[in-house]
Parts: sequence; C-alpha cells; structure tokens
Amino acid sequence: MTDDNTVYVGNKKDAMSYVMAVTTQFNKGSEEVVLKARGGAISRAVDTAEITKNRFLQNLEILDITTEMEELENEDGSNSNVSAISITLGESN
Amino acid sequence: MTDDNTVYVGNKKDAMSYVMAVTTQFNKGSEEVVLKARGGAISRAVDTAEITKNRFLQNLEILDITTEMEELENEDGSNSNVSAISITLGESN
Repeated sequence: MTDDNTVYVGNKKDAMSYVMAVTTQFNKGSEEVVLKARGGAISRAVDTAEITKNRFLQNLEILDITTEMEELENEDGSNSNVSAISITLGESN
Repeated sequence: MTDDNTVYVGNKKDAMSYVMAVTTQFNKGSEEVVLKARGGAISRAVDTAEITKNRFLQNLEILDITTEMEELENEDGSNSNVSAISITLGESN
C-alpha cells in the first residue's frame, strides 16, 4: 500500500475488519481516508463507509464517491472489465 | 414502481437486464434515471451505471452517488441494517 490513507476492501474479510482499518487511520491523524474496491467487494466498501460514520466516527461524512470501469488482463492474455469504487471519508465541516 | 425514472437493481437478473431498463427510460425521454440497490446488489448497480455510460449511451455521466444505511424489519420483528446506494445518471453538459 503506497498511500497510507487508502484502505483496499476485498472479499476475504468482513466489513468490520475494514471499519477497524479506517478507524485506525483516522486515529493516526489522517484527515481523509479513501476506501477502494472492485467487483463484488463494492457492496462491502459501502457497508464499511456507512458503519464507520454511523456507529464509530460520527463526525465523519462521505466527501466523495466515484466509480469507474477498469480493464484487467486475464492469465490467458485476454481482458476483462470490472467496476470499481472510491469512497472518500473525512470530517464534516 | 411509483417513479418511472427509478430502476431498482436486485440480485435476480444480470447487469445487462438493468442496462436495458435504463436505456429504455432514456429512450422514452427521461432526462435522468436513478439506479437504486441494497446490500449485495450495490455492486450490480455500479456495473449497470458503468456499462450504460461506457457502452450504450456515451453522452451520459454519473451526476450523483449517495449511500445510506436503511433499517429493515425482519419477520420476527427484529431490525437489520442494510446499506443502500442511489446513482443518478443524466446527460453531461
């Protein structure tokens, strides 16, 4: 992870694990944390953002949500498209 | 469905079915179409938005994305929380 304030959300852990990762980043002093996910993990990224701001850090809000279509290369050299989301959390003004 | 320009994305059909529903709404003259989904279908709603604007209606852009936590009542009377997303598609200026 090059960006300390980015949390990559996957399918292997439950949302609460990512909520803890986000909370830790804010507690270390980050002003914004970006959740990133692709494909089926997009739903978990939204869960993570909503649980974090509703239950743990109620001074937070979602500052920005963007989506895009990413092209991934398969093992056989062909390409697949997969949707991706970025959710930026930060303190509300 | 009370709002003609809202497309509810679920888990039972593939993204392409919802892409066709969105495209039909725009072809009927809607200026904006709102995709709504909950829980695991959120990923499919993002797929639907990205496929529609990248492959079918390239004058569209995503105008707004909002998320929220909804409380649902279970059959036994208890409550569950589920994340939800609304994605507004419209013509780019």
